[in-house]
Amino acid sequence: MALNRESYFNKSRVEALSDGIFAVSITLLVLGIRVPEIHNHQSMSELAKALLTLIPKLLSWIISFLIVCVIWVNHHHIFKQLKIVTKSIFWFNANLLLWSTLIPFPTALMGDYVNNPLSLITFGIINLLLSFSFYFLRKNIIKNDFVLKENVDRTHYKNATRKLLIFGPILYVLGILSSLIHPYIAFTIYFFIPFYFVFFSSSKLKED
Amino acid sequence: MALNRESYFNKSRVEALSDGIFAVSITLLVLGIRVPEIHNHQSMSELAKALLTLIPKLLSWIISFLIVCVIWVNHHHIFKQLKIVTKSIFWFNANLLLWSTLIPFPTALMGDYVNNPLSLITFGIINLLLSFSFYFLRKNIIKNDFVLKENVDRTHYKNATRKLLIFGPILYVLGILSSLIHPYIAFTIYFFIPFYFVFFSSSKLKED
Amino acid sequence: MALNRESYFNKSRVEALSDGIFAVSITLLVLGIRVPEIHNHQSMSELAKALLTLIPKLLSWIISFLIVCVIWVNHHHIFKQLKIVTKSIFWFNANLLLWSTLIPFPTALMGDYVNNPLSLITFGIINLLLSFSFYFLRKNIIKNDFVLKENVDRTHYKNATRKLLIFGPILYVLGILSSLIHPYIAFTIYFFIPFYFVFFSSSKLKED
Amino acid sequence: MALNRESYFNKSRVEALSDGIFAVSITLLVLGIRVPEIHNHQSMSELAKALLTLIPKLLSWIISFLIVCVIWVNHHHIFKQLKIVTKSIFWFNANLLLWSTLIPFPTALMGDYVNNPLSLITFGIINLLLSFSFYFLRKNIIKNDFVLKENVDRTHYKNATRKLLIFGPILYVLGILSSLIHPYIAFTIYFFIPFYFVFFSSSKLKED
Repeated sequence: MALNRESYFNKSRVEALSDGIFAVSITLLVLGIRVPEIHNHQSMSELAKALLTLIPKLLSWIISFLIVCVIWVNHHHIFKQLKIVTKSIFWFNANLLLWSTLIPFPTALMGDYVNNPLSLITFGIINLLLSFSFYFLRKNIIKNDFVLKENVDRTHYKNATRKLLIFGPILYVLGILSSLIHPYIAFTIYFFIPFYFVFFSSSKLKED
Repeated sequence: MALNRESYFNKSRVEALSDGIFAVSITLLVLGIRVPEIHNHQSMSELAKALLTLIPKLLSWIISFLIVCVIWVNHHHIFKQLKIVTKSIFWFNANLLLWSTLIPFPTALMGDYVNNPLSLITFGIINLLLSFSFYFLRKNIIKNDFVLKENVDRTHYKNATRKLLIFGPILYVLGILSSLIHPYIAFTIYFFIPFYFVFFSSSKLKED
Repeated sequence: MALNRESYFNKSRVEALSDGIFAVSITLLVLGIRVPEIHNHQSMSELAKALLTLIPKLLSWIISFLIVCVIWVNHHHIFKQLKIVTKSIFWFNANLLLWSTLIPFPTALMGDYVNNPLSLITFGIINLLLSFSFYFLRKNIIKNDFVLKENVDRTHYKNATRKLLIFGPILYVLGILSSLIHPYIAFTIYFFIPFYFVFFSSSKLKED
Repeated sequence: MALNRESYFNKSRVEALSDGIFAVSITLLVLGIRVPEIHNHQSMSELAKALLTLIPKLLSWIISFLIVCVIWVNHHHIFKQLKIVTKSIFWFNANLLLWSTLIPFPTALMGDYVNNPLSLITFGIINLLLSFSFYFLRKNIIKNDFVLKENVDRTHYKNATRKLLIFGPILYVLGILSSLIHPYIAFTIYFFIPFYFVFFSSSKLKED
């Protein structure tokens, strides 16, 4: 493969497009939380009851907000270590963005049908697909490792990628399976996954 | 904590993500103002009456637009003084963005139920949470003050943070309490808070 | 007023926020065009009839798309000539952004009630407010002309600002008044205003 | 035409506006996929059936997501080779952005009425208009080829533009015509067009 600079993408425009997409996705999540309709507009108790029914939606929104943040952090780390953006990286990144922009849908679904195992399974599956799209992107980077900056430890990068394949998906598979026992168990697992990643990804950031 | 440059975030990408989120939030606010449905499409008087009922929504929209602008100004000042973005700053910033993206919801709620004290209390509480998220971000910056640029006066920064804890919240607590007397008093207070901050934040900008 | 660099805004972040807001506004316009509901999903003639009723919405969308583009071009020219962004420029710019983000509302209103003079009057009034917000921004820049780049001709800037006050509003006032004769006259005027500005603003760009 | 630098646009702001618009368009596509309403909130089979009816919408969304990505890639290549952005380039680019932001509408239409030939014809026509807007932009660049970077091969650029006029549209015309035989044939063609472009545009990237 010729190292012709012209044939690569402008890295900062790819980052700008990705950041724009993440920013819009993260902000659209809130559209899932609609103002409730009540009969007596001045009744505090009726509005209070209506707002209480929004709690699953609020929690779904917080989960998804944190998930998109964690995605962004991982995306940031991957791009920080890239020297150039090839065509294949662009399209593996596009695949990652595809599933990221879908997030508002399973979030709203889970917020609406928190008692239905299938909505929790759907949420888990889309997050599984997201984990895999990260794995495929990193795998492609390893295969063409001339795209990485010189100071990046290739062996460490490979190991981190392999760990990613096992670790991220395992938690969502656990969520999917547990939703068949009771949807609230899956919901609780989904709630703690991003919190876990906040700390895990932080420590990873240190090693890099 | 090692001062390893690699372990920090790309400041301009964090700013780009934040700016994107603020820009989308601020523009989504207008979605709360829906085109009214009227029976006789050509009747000016019917449309006029329908448009007049949108006035509380228009005022809520202006309040929230200004609030997000004030948030952006404060965010801009905090990041202007930062040299590096650590993991903890990233996540305290994410917390700030979380509540900022929620703003369209209480805005629409207040626009729909301007006569209901609870909608004004909700609006106040979310703004309280926003004030606190600013406080926590600044508190974290003070704790790790190696992230600040050299020319920033640490003592002044600490005092400004302490003042922020008292000042911002006090106005929203006032709004929340007054909404129990009459929602319109709270609405009036909320309306003047951002205008007040426009001038207050301006003068603050000068001292910095 | 001290020329203390620290007390000014980061110009590129203000531009990024503004560009983000323009980009979102311009894209939200399309949300006013909803997929029509038909009974027989496979009937081409029923769908054709339903799509034909969308024509006023499509034309409103094109008008508003071009208006936001013209706003962006004018905004671009103003910021290209700025050396620094002061607090007052920030808030006059915020006022301009406020009315720009409102554009999707009168656009949808005009698309829904194209036969109602009041919807065309509303559209004209909001565009009038936009013209004035440009005038106030430029007026503020002239008053503190140390914010302008050295190579900007102050006298020419002042004359261009004065012309702006007369020229932009006059066309929208004409639209507002003519809507009382027949809404379609106003619609036609609104349709040609941005096309006119595309060429006018181009020539203006040349002189600058 | 005088080569006065002042009379040109700030290329990076035009790119930022375009990237913002592409990012929002791409993310808005998902709003076409609404959470289905079911009677028994806890019924997995009812939710499963409701989710299955979303499949045409999911496929439409993937098609449009890839189309906007392909548009972005082509836009990226055009701007990478530009030295300056003139007024006419700005407005031909605006025309391109206009049709790009419309994409969510025919996507939702096709998702809702996948069995109706007219929805597939509409989708094809808007993509035809998009192809033409690319052709007009490139045509304008050739006419004023002082806007191109010195290292760009003018003859190759001209040939690539001519090929674009024939190639892109031919596939969509094929889709439009085949939708009269059966909408699913058109749907299949539309599905493979972006995949084809992913590889075609990649090879083009190499030659440039």
